[in-house]
Amino acid sequence: MLGKTYDDQVCSIASALNVIGERWSLLIVRDALFAGATRFKDFQRSLGVAPNILSSRLDAFISTGIMERRTDADRPHQVEYVLTAKGRDLGPALLALNFWGDRWWSPQGPPNIYEHSQCGSRIRQELTCVDCGPVTMDDVVVHPGLGFPGRAKQAGN
Amino acid sequence: MLGKTYDDQVCSIASALNVIGERWSLLIVRDALFAGATRFKDFQRSLGVAPNILSSRLDAFISTGIMERRTDADRPHQVEYVLTAKGRDLGPALLALNFWGDRWWSPQGPPNIYEHSQCGSRIRQELTCVDCGPVTMDDVVVHPGLGFPGRAKQAGN
Repeated sequence: MLGKTYDDQVCSIASALNVIGERWSLLIVRDALFAGATRFKDFQRSLGVAPNILSSRLDAFISTGIMERRTDADRPHQVEYVLTAKGRDLGPALLALNFWGDRWWSPQGPPNIYEHSQCGSRIRQELTCVDCGPVTMDDVVVHPGLGFPGRAKQAGN
Repeated sequence: MLGKTYDDQVCSIASALNVIGERWSLLIVRDALFAGATRFKDFQRSLGVAPNILSSRLDAFISTGIMERRTDADRPHQVEYVLTAKGRDLGPALLALNFWGDRWWSPQGPPNIYEHSQCGSRIRQELTCVDCGPVTMDDVVVHPGLGFPGRAKQAGN
C-alpha cells in the first residue's frame, strides 16, 4: 500500500486532482482548449453552470496559474480568460478521459473525433516504455520516486 | 463553439466526468489499480475519507459497472471491491493526470515512478496520429463524430 496517499506530496494524481478535481473545472479547461472559449459568457452558455460557481473556478484557475486574465486595449471592459502553458498541458488528460468515455459510454459512437490537423487521421493515445515501445496498463508498475517524502534525503546520503 | 457541451451525448469528456468527476472517485480507482486496495478499510485508511462518502462512491462504482463486489467462500463477511475491465481502463486517464502533476506540481521530482514491469524503464504517454506517428496537442483538432446528436441520422441519409 502507498499509505495515506491523498497527501499531494506523495502522488501526482492526488496533486493534480487537488487543483482540478471536480468536473466543472475540467469542463472549463475543455471549452477553453477545444472550443476556443475565452469569455465568462462563453463558458456560461456552453456549460449552463451557475455564475457563482463559474466565477470561483475561473478565480481558482488564475491563482493556480492554469489561466490568465487578459484585456484588449481596444475593449478594456472585455476580460478574457486564457489558458497558460500549464493549462494547455491538461490536454492529454482530457483526451484520456475522452477516449475512456468513447469506449464505455458512447454506444452510438464517439460524439467528437480528435484528428491530426495536418492529415485528418485519427489521434490515439498510447502508453510506451522508453526502451521497449508500446505497452498496456498490465505492464505498468509503480515505485516511489525522488519526490516521495524522505526519498530525496535518502538519495542524498 | 461546441454548444451546450455538458450534455453527455455531445462529449465523452463530459460523459466520463459525469461518472467519475470528483477527486475522491479517481483516487479510489487509483488505490484499487496501483496500490491493490480492495477492502473498505483499505480505501479509508489510504484516503482518510469519511465513511459515508466512501460508501456512496463505492456504491456508485458498483451501479456504473466500474467495480464489482466479491466475497470469498472462506470469508463470507469480507466484502471486496474489485475494478472491472471498465474500471481498470481508467488507468491511462490516471497516468495522464499523474504526468501533468509531475510536470507542474512536483518541484522535488515525481513522487511516484511508473515503470515497465518487464525491463524497469520509464513509462511515457504519447499522442500519435495513426498515419503520421507522434504529434503534440497543437496538432489536434476536434470534429463532431457519429455519436454527436443528429449526426448518425445525417450519416444515414
